[in-house]
Amino acid sequence: MGRAAIIAGSGTLPRLVAAALEAPVYVTLDGASAPEGATHVSARIEKLGRLFKDLRAQGVTEVTFAGAMVRPKINPVLLDRHALRLAMSLGKGDDALLREVLALFAEQGFTVRGAAELCPDLTLPSGTHWGHAPSPEETADTDRAQAVLDALSPLDVGQGAVCAGGQMLGIETVQGTDALLRFVAQTPERLRRAKGVFVKAPKRGQDLRVDMPTIGPETVAAAIAAGLGGIVIPGGAVIVIERDRVRHQIEEAGMFLSAQ
Amino acid sequence: MGRAAIIAGSGTLPRLVAAALEAPVYVTLDGASAPEGATHVSARIEKLGRLFKDLRAQGVTEVTFAGAMVRPKINPVLLDRHALRLAMSLGKGDDALLREVLALFAEQGFTVRGAAELCPDLTLPSGTHWGHAPSPEETADTDRAQAVLDALSPLDVGQGAVCAGGQMLGIETVQGTDALLRFVAQTPERLRRAKGVFVKAPKRGQDLRVDMPTIGPETVAAAIAAGLGGIVIPGGAVIVIERDRVRHQIEEAGMFLSAQ
Repeated sequence: MGRAAIIAGSGTLPRLVAAALEAPVYVTLDGASAPEGATHVSARIEKLGRLFKDLRAQGVTEVTFAGAMVRPKINPVLLDRHALRLAMSLGKGDDALLREVLALFAEQGFTVRGAAELCPDLTLPSGTHWGHAPSPEETADTDRAQAVLDALSPLDVGQGAVCAGGQMLGIETVQGTDALLRFVAQTPERLRRAKGVFVKAPKRGQDLRVDMPTIGPETVAAAIAAGLGGIVIPGGAVIVIERDRVRHQIEEAGMFLSAQ
Repeated sequence: MGRAAIIAGSGTLPRLVAAALEAPVYVTLDGASAPEGATHVSARIEKLGRLFKDLRAQGVTEVTFAGAMVRPKINPVLLDRHALRLAMSLGKGDDALLREVLALFAEQGFTVRGAAELCPDLTLPSGTHWGHAPSPEETADTDRAQAVLDALSPLDVGQGAVCAGGQMLGIETVQGTDALLRFVAQTPERLRRAKGVFVKAPKRGQDLRVDMPTIGPETVAAAIAAGLGGIVIPGGAVIVIERDRVRHQIEEAGMFLSAQ
């Protein structure tokens, strides 16, 4: 592989990816700074032609998107022809917009790679297990939450679900994982038969190169606050940020985390 | 039909049913009082044999369950043989427990009827429409929320779902409708593309005689607080409590309510 550029969204992920790569190019779209050891390219969403040129000048052949991207606010006066094409897709759904972004970079000769592809250590291999062994009830809760995600997957809904003692306590919607776990934390005690399991997984057909589900210390803290017993993810398909800290949290809280 | 007895759970529904029936028998299990015009039978969950005897003495042949039932706290010392059978089912799921209750009443010769069967005015006929005509976007949101409920129905999950501008904002879990709508109300503005539609419907195979989904003024107030544009229910299969008040709320808030 040639030199890689990271298109940096929010959160700690872009910096973790940068730290794992040799001499990366670090592209920010919001005027943010770049980590030490990376070549900084400060770009504007309206000037994609300039970005493509800068990337080529740096010898970049691979591009990876890392961290949450917000739908950009665009100044229409400044749009170049590439950005104009993107702007015309802004009214479409997230998936359509994403496909347009990928097509733009591909046409310019860049290979779009997933962050987890460039840094395999970002995900956990299947079979990874931290903390206590799940009880039969926790295994049943895992299966039920997974069945709910499977049923919703064709509808492009649901990256996460919580089941406790056979009852669904929450299904992730557009507000994301943290909101889901806060909701679960508010479940009245009388409705709660067990601690429960949080299953997090990609949707079927989700493009893992640009949109891999991610958990990290904040997710685990929210799961602890929600009184959950365990977290289950598929191996190789969910990014685990700061895995050592996550493992410590899981073990200290008496929970389990399992990559299946 | 013969004389009907209402097994009264919580909320206003039992009294609405009582008001619609001629000389009903009103059974309370928690020491609550009965409305005027009804014959009061104060029963204990442990003494079902006594309840059956009292109902027969009053000439009751039809029984209806109205209002939310909490899983009873049972004093095992007091159990008669009927209640003992029920107590043995308490460890099972809600559906299994319900089936046992229905079987017990049926074996004693009572016909279990849905509240909406005894009082057809509790539901809205298909084609009922209050408030503004839904926009094409609201119709699409209705279809998407309904598709999510359909996908979850075989798993015995989801009586309600909210979709706004093509994005799911919430899927009902065990905490119920009010918790769902409170969750939706907290959606950050930047994630919200439209007001959205709340679809409420029974799950496939749900026994509407004892467990019909219910909305009322509190539901509409919560939907208004969540900024929703409309509510959609199936005709004849969701109880609408205090319909005149509900209609007034809907129209005043510039929403719509549609029974399809």
